[in-house]
Amino acid sequence: MNLSEMNKEQLLKFKDDTQQLYNDFRSKGLCLNMARGNPCKEQLELSVNMLHSFDDNDFISTNGIDVRNYGLLDGIPEAKKLFSDMIGVDDDEVIIFGNSSLNAMFWTVQTAFNKGVLGNTPWSKLDKVKFLCPVPGYDRHFKVTEFFGIEMINVPMTLTGPDMDMIEKLVSEDEEIKGIWCVPQYSNPDGISYSDDTVRRFANLKPKAKDFRIFWDNAYCIHHLTENPNYILNILDEAKKAGNENLVYIFGSTSKITFPGAGVAVMGASRENVENLKKHLGISIISYDKMNQLRHVKFFGTFENMIEHMKKHMAIIAPKFKLVCDMLRKEIAPLGIGEWTEPEGGYFISFNAINGCAKRIVKLCSEAGVTLTGAGATFPYGIDKDDRNIRIAPTYPSMEDLEKAMELFIISVKLASVEKLLDDMK
Amino acid sequence: MNLSEMNKEQLLKFKDDTQQLYNDFRSKGLCLNMARGNPCKEQLELSVNMLHSFDDNDFISTNGIDVRNYGLLDGIPEAKKLFSDMIGVDDDEVIIFGNSSLNAMFWTVQTAFNKGVLGNTPWSKLDKVKFLCPVPGYDRHFKVTEFFGIEMINVPMTLTGPDMDMIEKLVSEDEEIKGIWCVPQYSNPDGISYSDDTVRRFANLKPKAKDFRIFWDNAYCIHHLTENPNYILNILDEAKKAGNENLVYIFGSTSKITFPGAGVAVMGASRENVENLKKHLGISIISYDKMNQLRHVKFFGTFENMIEHMKKHMAIIAPKFKLVCDMLRKEIAPLGIGEWTEPEGGYFISFNAINGCAKRIVKLCSEAGVTLTGAGATFPYGIDKDDRNIRIAPTYPSMEDLEKAMELFIISVKLASVEKLLDDMK
Repeated sequence: MNLSEMNKEQLLKFKDDTQQLYNDFRSKGLCLNMARGNPCKEQLELSVNMLHSFDDNDFISTNGIDVRNYGLLDGIPEAKKLFSDMIGVDDDEVIIFGNSSLNAMFWTVQTAFNKGVLGNTPWSKLDKVKFLCPVPGYDRHFKVTEFFGIEMINVPMTLTGPDMDMIEKLVSEDEEIKGIWCVPQYSNPDGISYSDDTVRRFANLKPKAKDFRIFWDNAYCIHHLTENPNYILNILDEAKKAGNENLVYIFGSTSKITFPGAGVAVMGASRENVENLKKHLGISIISYDKMNQLRHVKFFGTFENMIEHMKKHMAIIAPKFKLVCDMLRKEIAPLGIGEWTEPEGGYFISFNAINGCAKRIVKLCSEAGVTLTGAGATFPYGIDKDDRNIRIAPTYPSMEDLEKAMELFIISVKLASVEKLLDDMK
Repeated sequence: MNLSEMNKEQLLKFKDDTQQLYNDFRSKGLCLNMARGNPCKEQLELSVNMLHSFDDNDFISTNGIDVRNYGLLDGIPEAKKLFSDMIGVDDDEVIIFGNSSLNAMFWTVQTAFNKGVLGNTPWSKLDKVKFLCPVPGYDRHFKVTEFFGIEMINVPMTLTGPDMDMIEKLVSEDEEIKGIWCVPQYSNPDGISYSDDTVRRFANLKPKAKDFRIFWDNAYCIHHLTENPNYILNILDEAKKAGNENLVYIFGSTSKITFPGAGVAVMGASRENVENLKKHLGISIISYDKMNQLRHVKFFGTFENMIEHMKKHMAIIAPKFKLVCDMLRKEIAPLGIGEWTEPEGGYFISFNAINGCAKRIVKLCSEAGVTLTGAGATFPYGIDKDDRNIRIAPTYPSMEDLEKAMELFIISVKLASVEKLLDDMK
């Protein structure tokens, strides 16, 4: 029975029963963390052989440079080849960074502040800088723009990507809008992949600001959860067709392919963007870790092998996503107290509770030993005005722990929902 | 015979002979690079066994975290222990960075611009920010301050460190002076180690600016070229004694201990500084490469072993420094056309030609196939007003190549000097 159809007496009974279940759970003393999209131990094991990929007598890159020494600011040629394939650009349209694409994004924004974008006024000299933020979105993106004092404007997500009508209108009218955060494939947290139409509309944007850039964080470009995945359109190709090739910065990493702590991050962009950014990058570093670049290249060999490697990840984590969705479908759907995505890739399930319940659900889970991403975290400034979105990260716990954690989550959703409905009757 | 004592006829003869030697050399078609302080191949080999230091079944840090996964922004505990020993701070006074201390320094300056230092006004909001720059110094330091538009003020080096009278006066009077670049042990390029008195005077500075910081780049803290080295005083200890513990940021790295491209960088500072900086750091990165941190810890075990390891470096490079100094002593000293340092550690020999000759010497070497660090590079904005300082980096070439390169260097010094003396007679 849908909870909204219950009368007060039924609701009170439902509340008492649920409270009892919650109390029982709390007494078990769980301690589980589903706050971040961390790979689990079995996933980490998939890449351990990479540590033995070196030939101790050969550390020479294809261009003759010893990867152990200084030099090659933008990466070794063989890493440029492999990772430009990964993010869909040519190998002279790429910069290989360190172990963190977040760090690469932070640096790119910071460089726009200090030096401007392709000869335009440094953002630090402007009265105001604004970014569009599809919501819900990735909390760490929003923290970067917040750090720099950038005003963030929410743009609602749809099933085909962010609201493009709104984006086209805003960027064509407001010169202070300098960027937008996008996770185009298996978006964080919704797991939505942008439709071809959405990608083309992005590529054809005509922003009023010449230095507007799309921050295309393709973090989950090959992180599929199905056998026959759909790929999004190549944004740089489409931007070139539109005569708009400087419009986009593409980011990616192997954080969830090899090791989150010790992967390789990469940025793709037009040659003009890349050349310009490299001039600034050279002030802050001599070179990133080229040994780790070569280690990755030797381990994978080709991009095709990387795709095969991702199937091993899928085999480990797809059942976890299925478990979460199955449990929600069984326990939450009949009650009409939540909606969620069933993603075909990425790292998250986005759950929308009844308005006004997200914070309470996260608190209930926390007090019974399961840490979730903070409610509101998926919105700029941590403000989910409807207080309804919760990001579920199912990859890290074991199947057994995940089932327990989801049992608690479901009980917490029920309890928070019935509390809210009763409260609304007052 | 000292060149300055020669008459015109003698000088012309000297010039003709030297020109002939130079032409012979040029026809040999050398191609050597002594521009940067790169370790040589034999030095890189010293650390290759580090690649086999992992136990494939144990990637767990002493605090229970899997180093392959996300987390631990400021480094794993065992790396904090090892590298805090290296730079002489406690293990809660340290942040472990990625592979580049230059990057850590850049980030620290950038953070002062964006967020200010310990609650003070962000430097970006100030009309002017100035840094003191002991000269000659490290070109990449100066490039960082130039990048941020910081006005650089030259401070002359003495045999005991920078001119402390000048520094004390300037920082006590001018609130716009926010920092100073120091390479306190085996300074780049002079190879001078700051005396105890100099370190104490630094630790006791009373800057007008509350947010003045000493950027203490102890890049060569254990990079000795003698069996019984002298260590500089511990600046943080001295600053604490002076009630001045927030005054200093210490930097170091293993770039010239293990691998320049794949080492570990570290920053030390007071607990208050470290806690404050970590808050900002967490916006730009989740964690640095903890696998590389653990790899280093497993390879060295203890700081004492790191010291032993450095003796192997010394065995390889000390003969190169000796060769350079011997050749200069034999060929240049009698002519009175140059002065140089004979360092007990570090990576460089600083050569001062007759005023007005440095650019010409570097050009002559370059045209005959030996690339040196650009003349002027050791000064802010690349301006050596006396045009006399040249940084010699002897570590990278083989002994055989180094001897050839130094022969050419000496011929070039002679030729440039006699050209200058003849020119002055006009």
